[in-house]
Amino acid sequence: MKIAVFGTGMVGDTIGSKLLEVGHSVMMGSRASGNEKALAFAAKHEGKAGTGTFAEAAAFGEIIFNCTAGVGSVEALKMAGEENLKGKIIVDIANPLDFSNGMPPTLTVCNTTSLGEEIQHAFPKAKVVKALNTIWCGIMVNPSMINGGDHSTFICGNDATAKEEVKEILKSFGWSGNNILDLGDITKSRGTEMYLPLWLSIYGATNNGAFNIKIVG
Amino acid sequence: MKIAVFGTGMVGDTIGSKLLEVGHSVMMGSRASGNEKALAFAAKHEGKAGTGTFAEAAAFGEIIFNCTAGVGSVEALKMAGEENLKGKIIVDIANPLDFSNGMPPTLTVCNTTSLGEEIQHAFPKAKVVKALNTIWCGIMVNPSMINGGDHSTFICGNDATAKEEVKEILKSFGWSGNNILDLGDITKSRGTEMYLPLWLSIYGATNNGAFNIKIVG
Repeated sequence: MKIAVFGTGMVGDTIGSKLLEVGHSVMMGSRASGNEKALAFAAKHEGKAGTGTFAEAAAFGEIIFNCTAGVGSVEALKMAGEENLKGKIIVDIANPLDFSNGMPPTLTVCNTTSLGEEIQHAFPKAKVVKALNTIWCGIMVNPSMINGGDHSTFICGNDATAKEEVKEILKSFGWSGNNILDLGDITKSRGTEMYLPLWLSIYGATNNGAFNIKIVG
Repeated sequence: MKIAVFGTGMVGDTIGSKLLEVGHSVMMGSRASGNEKALAFAAKHEGKAGTGTFAEAAAFGEIIFNCTAGVGSVEALKMAGEENLKGKIIVDIANPLDFSNGMPPTLTVCNTTSLGEEIQHAFPKAKVVKALNTIWCGIMVNPSMINGGDHSTFICGNDATAKEEVKEILKSFGWSGNNILDLGDITKSRGTEMYLPLWLSIYGATNNGAFNIKIVG
């Protein structure tokens, strides 16, 4: 499948590399063409990955992974162009963290809305699926790194078929279907995004970001 | 130890009953004396538990468990009187959930503050310890109900000694010390309270409130 990865940071690099590894074609999108990190990503994968603007990547992709920083995600997707996103799945793994006032970050949107909802609202013809935003990116693509792979991740979104497609991608990353909990429609993004302050507190208390939560009961 | 339990709902009843079971003296506090639910609680425990106003209960207690609905917690504590709370531990297990606009509830405070912080701010001479607010009350007092008792709970607060005292109470409830994570100061209440929307989503998706999360990593 042709997949666009928006964002050239650690998350975009990690997700893009895994998508290549499991057999997809990947184009990494960024604000302007010739982005150094995107070119380094493509070089690392010996030309198997493409690079382009957000618009070029979105036009290429059948699915778009939003790995941009949450504060800039809606703007990045607007640069991609509504026509290039129409009817496509946007896998939103970003969190609306605002670091501008120092640590700990606050959320730019929460409680009565969420980044997932804001993206769906801005692009009503796209199919937004919130996924993977509750874990460090190393575990996103390698769940077996901890607890034998037995821990929980969440998806939500308004389109059932889109969620099934994303679930298959997560399985190809190593997630067991039993550990992927469908929380419901895109409003459920609020819960997974508002979990971030607790995630950051656990990280701070344990000095270990390579953790996750497992639902037991 | 003499403990005041604020709140006559299911949480107050559950916590109060467990505190009696493990050997404490309990007075259940409510807005007005003669509260029917408080009297029923005392009757159920054959006179071993007392009842009174918030002020009477706070004057009685060496520790106060806040089991009121979060939207009314600060007001309830104000009714107790600052002098009756001075120097005492307030174990805040409430969540600032606002059900007035229907389901799902939103939080009355979040992101840049929290109920735990608001209580600490209103009563600077009390020692607020946030605890147990991330789980259904049945599991709060009976962690072995699920996963052999092996799952995570959180405490936070500004006073290290107060947190140790609360940790001992949690251990007497059946919690393993290894599963009680101290997140830091009272600002960390934000994380545990902002987890509630995810808790509610998991509950909604699984139809099971008798669950918890276990940190793995």
